[in-house]
Amino acid sequence: MRRRDFTKASLSALGALSVGRAGGFALPHLGVSPTLVNGERLNAHIAELSQFGKNDFGGVSRVAYSDFDKQGRAYAMGLMRAAGLTVTIDAGGNIWGRRAGSDPSRKPIVFGSHIDSVPEGGNFDGPVGSLGAIEVAQTLGEKGITTKHPLEVVIFQNEEGGTVGSRVLTGEVSADDLTLSTKSGKTIGEGITFIGGDVNQLAAARRAPGSIAGYVELHIEQGGNLEAEKLDIGVVEGIVGIGWWDVTIEGFPNHAGTTAMNNRRDAMLAAARFTDMVNRVVTSVPGRQVGTVGRIQAFPGAPNVIPGKVICSLELRELDAAKQAMLFERIKGEAEHIGTATGTTFSYKPTHESAPALCDTRVQKFVEQSARGLGLTTKYMPSGAGHDAQHMARLGPAGMIFVPSVGGISHSPKEFSHAKDVANGANVLLSTVLAIDAAPWS
Amino acid sequence: MRRRDFTKASLSALGALSVGRAGGFALPHLGVSPTLVNGERLNAHIAELSQFGKNDFGGVSRVAYSDFDKQGRAYAMGLMRAAGLTVTIDAGGNIWGRRAGSDPSRKPIVFGSHIDSVPEGGNFDGPVGSLGAIEVAQTLGEKGITTKHPLEVVIFQNEEGGTVGSRVLTGEVSADDLTLSTKSGKTIGEGITFIGGDVNQLAAARRAPGSIAGYVELHIEQGGNLEAEKLDIGVVEGIVGIGWWDVTIEGFPNHAGTTAMNNRRDAMLAAARFTDMVNRVVTSVPGRQVGTVGRIQAFPGAPNVIPGKVICSLELRELDAAKQAMLFERIKGEAEHIGTATGTTFSYKPTHESAPALCDTRVQKFVEQSARGLGLTTKYMPSGAGHDAQHMARLGPAGMIFVPSVGGISHSPKEFSHAKDVANGANVLLSTVLAIDAAPWS
Repeated sequence: MRRRDFTKASLSALGALSVGRAGGFALPHLGVSPTLVNGERLNAHIAELSQFGKNDFGGVSRVAYSDFDKQGRAYAMGLMRAAGLTVTIDAGGNIWGRRAGSDPSRKPIVFGSHIDSVPEGGNFDGPVGSLGAIEVAQTLGEKGITTKHPLEVVIFQNEEGGTVGSRVLTGEVSADDLTLSTKSGKTIGEGITFIGGDVNQLAAARRAPGSIAGYVELHIEQGGNLEAEKLDIGVVEGIVGIGWWDVTIEGFPNHAGTTAMNNRRDAMLAAARFTDMVNRVVTSVPGRQVGTVGRIQAFPGAPNVIPGKVICSLELRELDAAKQAMLFERIKGEAEHIGTATGTTFSYKPTHESAPALCDTRVQKFVEQSARGLGLTTKYMPSGAGHDAQHMARLGPAGMIFVPSVGGISHSPKEFSHAKDVANGANVLLSTVLAIDAAPWS
Repeated sequence: MRRRDFTKASLSALGALSVGRAGGFALPHLGVSPTLVNGERLNAHIAELSQFGKNDFGGVSRVAYSDFDKQGRAYAMGLMRAAGLTVTIDAGGNIWGRRAGSDPSRKPIVFGSHIDSVPEGGNFDGPVGSLGAIEVAQTLGEKGITTKHPLEVVIFQNEEGGTVGSRVLTGEVSADDLTLSTKSGKTIGEGITFIGGDVNQLAAARRAPGSIAGYVELHIEQGGNLEAEKLDIGVVEGIVGIGWWDVTIEGFPNHAGTTAMNNRRDAMLAAARFTDMVNRVVTSVPGRQVGTVGRIQAFPGAPNVIPGKVICSLELRELDAAKQAMLFERIKGEAEHIGTATGTTFSYKPTHESAPALCDTRVQKFVEQSARGLGLTTKYMPSGAGHDAQHMARLGPAGMIFVPSVGGISHSPKEFSHAKDVANGANVLLSTVLAIDAAPWS
């Protein structure tokens, strides 16, 4: 309803807004009757895909390289062909659906997502963007719209197991990585072969930096911000950097009955104060940074022994790498005081690090304008989760579109996004792709 | 040196003190030349016993029902026979060495300890009291001293696995208990058979309440209080009550990247604040109570997932049951506030409870007088660890004698008590046994 009211009443305002906010680029395709996807069909496709690997709780367990994954991929490839796309599987196992543009010299505009899930996952994380991208292509075909740029719908393989498919494109998957085991029981190498890739030709799947005109990914937010603020579309500013550390706290193990409270070097007490302090430090400065202690083990781990050692995880996520480093330094500094007070020592072993990946500001503006042009409300926000887009950002201007997740729940069978929001997202994706196609810089 | 000075210079003072502090009982056997054990021999025996099951770190792994346990028991029975004791094994597998008294109508005075160890244990927890008791009997024989009461030196089986031997005496070992597996790989029932007991006749090993004149156990402190205060002997006031709970903290699991800090129901954060709060509550009132969180698990337990559930252990130990209950109530009350602040709930499942066992105040006085009569310094203290004495206290007046543990270390190969302190302890044991023998109430 809001959309229709808007297009009827506020068209001139939209034109002014678009020009004003995008630094001079209007979105000419957003006319009196903007091109819209078939939201009903898209949501039906999502429901159909969720049959492959459906679990007992209303979600799916469609882990990469499983039989269900293969079945889901076959289903998606069928949709791609029905949408008039030319389907190929690259050496890395990613699925590509290509649609020619009017100017063969142009670089492709790439858009898509993934369809693999975590174990006991939901039906929206990945499928919304993947099937949304196919829906965009199908809509363009039905409306007889030909872009200048070739369009490539991509379904990346094994996003949940470490954005493997997109890292193949950037050349970041090593021979060692191929030997890593996955939730499917197969190694990554075996999995790539299983889904139709060719591990001996991985380099053929690489894309050079600058070789794409743009990348756009529609995805569910996986957090509760949009829903809480009753907003329609998240304009993603970038994918946060992630730091993981194993924090080892060493005290002295002793008999919990005979060792007086003032004579203890209790690593568990120190770990507790550390966990509380991480929360305090992370929330002590403005911003949307997050910090989490998600895993902990106390040694020896008996009710009647004062732990002499605790190992816990620390995760920090933030879009600004310098700010993340500052937070980690503050945490280390405060931990020193905890160590002094409890007779323990802290040490930190980095176990994972991914740099922040910023979305292209021009693409961000297109996403925002597209949403507003469709009468949708927006919010600029970082993505706290990793996405294939973070690797694609190395190849060209990248952007992401978020739609609300009910209750912010994700990686769960309870994950849910309303059909209306899914359709909104696909419409913004369509509009953004057209805006990139029309952009003088693309 | 201190001892000789004392006996020379302060004999009249001792007499006055003994009368004054023991409510009218002097210790007549503490004359100008008190009867003393052969400390050198006792320490040599401890060193010999430590050969059975010795580990690579200087301690022993002589878990109950193992071959090493059986070898150690054979060694101890040899010492008993050499000390002139009549050796039997009861149906529960406990070793008894009996020495007749001059008055066959008197109830026996029982004293002893255990020789089984924890895995990777030390050489003093148990052996000091067991071999110390044998040394007392040997000394009495050598000095030609006959007590009025029969004396029974006892070596309880499987103290470390749950004071099994002493619980056989009080009838607390059930048929179900016999099926429990132990560190030896055998069930308790199989273990009792292995060491010469008879599981079909367990009731024959029971002793009725009131059937003993007293029980005295010499043991290492297993804490660092005596050493820290440079004191010789701990006069044990009782064995603390122990409460164990599994504390379950429930929040909501969520994506650690996409869930804003102010939108979390982080069970790990709540568990951290709980652990810190337990420490604060337990140390907020005077006394020697202890509280420990020794085991913790976060679910699902991944660095990138906010824990939706944490289960941790809570242990409280205190000699005064009412005070322990008060502490637990305060902890529960404070946890409510933590739950409110973090969006989590706390629940408590009791997993173990043992009531405090108070030492007989008359026996405490005898221990104190005996130590002072030998020129040794003393401190009244609870036993934070469980001991066979807590069950024996149900059968008659019980007491315990602690000697210092270097660094308070126990259940470790590093466990150590100085030879001088071991000898002191055995001398106090001897004196206390004689005092009970001479007491008008025994």
